[in-house]
Amino acid sequence: MCQPVRVSDTPSAPPVCVLGLGLIGGSLLRAAVRAGREAWGHNRSAPSVDAARSDGFDADTDLVAVLQRASAESALIVIAVPVPAVAATLTAIALYAPNCSITDVVSVKAEVAATAARQGLSDRYVGGHPMAGTSASGWSVGSADLFREAVWVVGTDDGVDPAIWTQVAQLALDCGSVVVPAESAEHDRAVARISHLPHLLAETLAITGARGGPLALGLAAGSFRDGTRVAGSAPGLVRAMCEGNRDALLIALDEALVLLQDARTELADLSSAATLVEAGHTARLTYDNQETWEITGIVPGREGWIDDMRDAGRRGGRLRRL
Amino acid sequence: MCQPVRVSDTPSAPPVCVLGLGLIGGSLLRAAVRAGREAWGHNRSAPSVDAARSDGFDADTDLVAVLQRASAESALIVIAVPVPAVAATLTAIALYAPNCSITDVVSVKAEVAATAARQGLSDRYVGGHPMAGTSASGWSVGSADLFREAVWVVGTDDGVDPAIWTQVAQLALDCGSVVVPAESAEHDRAVARISHLPHLLAETLAITGARGGPLALGLAAGSFRDGTRVAGSAPGLVRAMCEGNRDALLIALDEALVLLQDARTELADLSSAATLVEAGHTARLTYDNQETWEITGIVPGREGWIDDMRDAGRRGGRLRRL
Repeated sequence: MCQPVRVSDTPSAPPVCVLGLGLIGGSLLRAAVRAGREAWGHNRSAPSVDAARSDGFDADTDLVAVLQRASAESALIVIAVPVPAVAATLTAIALYAPNCSITDVVSVKAEVAATAARQGLSDRYVGGHPMAGTSASGWSVGSADLFREAVWVVGTDDGVDPAIWTQVAQLALDCGSVVVPAESAEHDRAVARISHLPHLLAETLAITGARGGPLALGLAAGSFRDGTRVAGSAPGLVRAMCEGNRDALLIALDEALVLLQDARTELADLSSAATLVEAGHTARLTYDNQETWEITGIVPGREGWIDDMRDAGRRGGRLRRL
Repeated sequence: MCQPVRVSDTPSAPPVCVLGLGLIGGSLLRAAVRAGREAWGHNRSAPSVDAARSDGFDADTDLVAVLQRASAESALIVIAVPVPAVAATLTAIALYAPNCSITDVVSVKAEVAATAARQGLSDRYVGGHPMAGTSASGWSVGSADLFREAVWVVGTDDGVDPAIWTQVAQLALDCGSVVVPAESAEHDRAVARISHLPHLLAETLAITGARGGPLALGLAAGSFRDGTRVAGSAPGLVRAMCEGNRDALLIALDEALVLLQDARTELADLSSAATLVEAGHTARLTYDNQETWEITGIVPGREGWIDDMRDAGRRGGRLRRL
């Protein structure tokens, strides 16, 4: 689907309306157009829209007009605004384009699904989360290649509409990603472990290191630099991720606290770090040696497809085509 | 001092006898020779010695002969053996080369200093710790460039012999490093924060992530990969570092536990991660923006030089020449 031909006349590839043209939304607009999709975007900031236009893309600051066009063309709407703006965006969609299919690229899924439900949009919404990004932000840093070979989670909750699910998965594939199907709450628990907890530990390490003053920081080498890298991310973004996934993050954080408390006891009482270090090494090897496999033969809409998709995602499966 | 000329006729640049030809010792032998120093090494393993010899270096498996030569030539002995072998190595030095200057490259300093004291070698010993290394090990992975622009801590304890201190600092400079003077216990507290705690947090993150199964590990991206990188290090090495610096590591670990517990409370009670995230970001910026400066004008042996050196190291100072 990466040839520059229009494919939007097939039901799974409608036009794409991207709301928010920052790093993720701006990259998505570029990638969709490159894949031959009809696509346009909205940003409330005129300079961002001007930048997108001067790069040859179809963009506008008028949200109502953009949504009315989405409604008229039965577009797939992608919510790519910052987390605090998601609820207001869904309100606008409910007003001006309630018939459209809706997805999003927010890093937590259960909360967005609940917000969509409060707007009566559950039937039209299938969540998404492309695991891609950098610490930079804004239209100018976007790239059509951002999602290439990235993992793109597509929300696979009870009662999900298979046609909309297919549209969202097709968009991810068109952008060059592989699709991992996962139920929203399960996604949130997973990213708490591998994306949000790493931030809390990095912040903790940065503080503890800096308390050692210039001597300690001057001796810091690779382990400290790597272990604190994401503490350099904008605090607002880190807080939005962590606070938006509070319940799942508390579970992961409590597990980490137990591991560290137990290690503290073992080190103090037995002068040994064996339990934590051995288990940690084994876990890292599991990560290094993980194998993924291609999901095939599950047809959205057939009986049991939701459970089958979730089960495949849980076992490391990835969709590479529909 | 990097030209290939013999400089070992000056008191601060005696011949160098390296005990242990793994990554660090093997790199040190190469770097010392490249700097024009007379240098030879010992390893108990014949294949390592054969490899060093076939690379053109002077190496032997006979520890007694190597130490007798060190004694005869008034060499500076560098202990570069694994931690568990340090005590036995010091015993051999006390027997066969008690007149030599002694340093080491072990990552904890107070324990080695105490072991040297038990052998009656305190007067001859000045600890060292080059902050360099990779996860690989053995003679074959060594490089004369390993220490280039690295930080090399030189132990600056009460009563240290200024002539031996100068020999050790000169060796570090000859290897291309910069010298940070620090008292042994202060060094250990610093590396607990920036080298040993990062390992415990990385192990913890790896375990917590792997508990999420293939779904979580399959979604893991940069923050998890970087945050768990050092969990890939050999468990034996990690344990030796952490257990050898137990008391200082417990202090750093307790600080980290308080930070994480407080963050847990704030997240649970107020749905906020503000305190940890803001402070962590500030700390990482402090690390990114740290400035080092060159120590000049402190002459080893002059009154107050030990306090002056320690104070300079504490404030981020580095020696680039003697």
